Amino acid sequence: MQADDTRRFPEALLRECVEARLAEAGASPGSRAAAGRAMLHASLVGVDSHGVRLAEHYCRMLGGGRLKRDPLLSVEHRGAGSAMVDGDDGLGHFAAYKAVEVGIALARTAGVGAVGVRRSSHLGAAGAYALAGAEQGFVTFATTNTDSMVALFDGAQKFHGTNPLAFAAPLPGERPWLLDMATSSIPLNRVMLHRSLDKTLPEGGAATPDGEPTTDPYAADMLLPLGGVDYGYKGAALAGVATLFSALLTGTTLDSDFIPMYGGDDISTPRNMGHFVLVIDPDKFAGRAAFGAAIARYVQSLRGSVPRAGGRVMAPGDREWAEMDERRATGIPVDPDTVRFLGL
Amino acid sequence: MQADDTRRFPEALLRECVEARLAEAGASPGSRAAAGRAMLHASLVGVDSHGVRLAEHYCRMLGGGRLKRDPLLSVEHRGAGSAMVDGDDGLGHFAAYKAVEVGIALARTAGVGAVGVRRSSHLGAAGAYALAGAEQGFVTFATTNTDSMVALFDGAQKFHGTNPLAFAAPLPGERPWLLDMATSSIPLNRVMLHRSLDKTLPEGGAATPDGEPTTDPYAADMLLPLGGVDYGYKGAALAGVATLFSALLTGTTLDSDFIPMYGGDDISTPRNMGHFVLVIDPDKFAGRAAFGAAIARYVQSLRGSVPRAGGRVMAPGDREWAEMDERRATGIPVDPDTVRFLGL
Repeated sequence: MQADDTRRFPEALLRECVEARLAEAGASPGSRAAAGRAMLHASLVGVDSHGVRLAEHYCRMLGGGRLKRDPLLSVEHRGAGSAMVDGDDGLGHFAAYKAVEVGIALARTAGVGAVGVRRSSHLGAAGAYALAGAEQGFVTFATTNTDSMVALFDGAQKFHGTNPLAFAAPLPGERPWLLDMATSSIPLNRVMLHRSLDKTLPEGGAATPDGEPTTDPYAADMLLPLGGVDYGYKGAALAGVATLFSALLTGTTLDSDFIPMYGGDDISTPRNMGHFVLVIDPDKFAGRAAFGAAIARYVQSLRGSVPRAGGRVMAPGDREWAEMDERRATGIPVDPDTVRFLGL
Repeated sequence: MQADDTRRFPEALLRECVEARLAEAGASPGSRAAAGRAMLHASLVGVDSHGVRLAEHYCRMLGGGRLKRDPLLSVEHRGAGSAMVDGDDGLGHFAAYKAVEVGIALARTAGVGAVGVRRSSHLGAAGAYALAGAEQGFVTFATTNTDSMVALFDGAQKFHGTNPLAFAAPLPGERPWLLDMATSSIPLNRVMLHRSLDKTLPEGGAATPDGEPTTDPYAADMLLPLGGVDYGYKGAALAGVATLFSALLTGTTLDSDFIPMYGGDDISTPRNMGHFVLVIDPDKFAGRAAFGAAIARYVQSLRGSVPRAGGRVMAPGDREWAEMDERRATGIPVDPDTVRFLGL
């Protein structure tokens, strides 16, 4: 989504500016560090929609009162492998990273940690949390539900959010295996981008207000679930998995009940968003060494498999890590509005 | 996949015949009861590919020695929330149902039970095990990896199996919310069916030996991952999630290393297949009553949402339970070969 007037900045400078703006908006040191970490993750791996451009939004919500400036996280242990984190209506990143930390501690002894999060808010890219667990050596799953904008299969109504499923696993001597996928085919910002480029959308990605598939970005009113016109029942059900774990198990808000993230009048009422994190310790299953050898061999075999003509086979995360390397070398592109907001 | 010469039989009779044939092939009472239960589940919900027609295959494998007739399951507890089940090379259904049972026991106290299975074999429909947990009141996830037959995104080689992801959750006063999905768009038997009907395949479901998408069932050599030509990287990564949990975490066989389920010469060597089951107790999160109320409201809102013209919106499982009702009323259709094998 880079226009020609984006400019590139180094990671450290962006992190500093993002945290400075959050500090001015009153965010506590812990919560702004967590939000900065998650935003920079997204910006580095190329998910600009969830990167530093969100700093302005979060600052506005800290100002409006939707987000508490100095949240007091609390952890309630429910069983040897389970806990709930209460985010105290602060920045969602703070609660979500805490859930990973709690999950790791549980997994070290129980073998698995299942952690629900309640009274949270937008957490940015779910992959940041799966990654945080994998970087410590744990297989990690993170999910959240979000504002309704995706049709059901055969539906003509925005029902689920783009509800991400993120998985990561440690890969010996390399950055983790990482999957961070929306359960819709495309994100909403793809529609916006294709409008601004006057370009048709790929088949099966979006629908008109009547639920009819369209490739016209101006006619697109809602997104379609992964699997498109023929197999969208699978994507819709996977979006339901995100809702099941994030909202139903934690007793938080359904996709269609959220106060809108953007565009609503209400920026003072907390949204009570839920998330869910699952952390697994390979040491309690095949063993860390055997798991490491197996995943290394698996990923090597995947990368070495036959591509189709003109194609390239990549493991989940390969594209993201390549993007990170490039952005660390040449800077992270930032759009003009965000450049102004950050005071760059 | 019903041809005109299928005949319909009542559930009880089929279960009896399936178990009788397995008994003749030497399967122990526990293992044949588990296999019968799983096959009847698949046959009742309309997944005929994994239903009673597999009885003949399993009997052949019991005869050949691939499957042990009287397996001794063992359970090794690894942590308060984790365990490994060793299937002792018996029928996979036996080990997989055991894993659900172990997972439930762990979840009752730890809040979550993560159970790996090793030295197992084909388990039929993964949904049978997610369902078994949900029927006891637990949110349950079950997965397995299988023989390579699905291309990677941009790949021209059979890499992953159709690797199912199955989730189920208890729904108060109703049969569970149930998702049992292959991570390919279509199953291999869809290709076979369309060959026999001389019908073209839907777009994005299958590819030629060069990995080029095709709708010609005769040209189809491998399946494509969910998401098709544009978003197949998501389906391929989800297939990887199945492999990650089922094979890498359990130290069992990779998709491409399996002795072929069908068609190979070797029916005497065990396949060391792995599975993975995750069981979560809602009582350790929102609480059983709050969870029940939330999922009931969610499913009601889903079923009541606006359909597109000519469409019908269903919750995951609705189609399966309707099929079950119909088949309980009119009988389960069985193909002629299986009718002969079962001695009906």
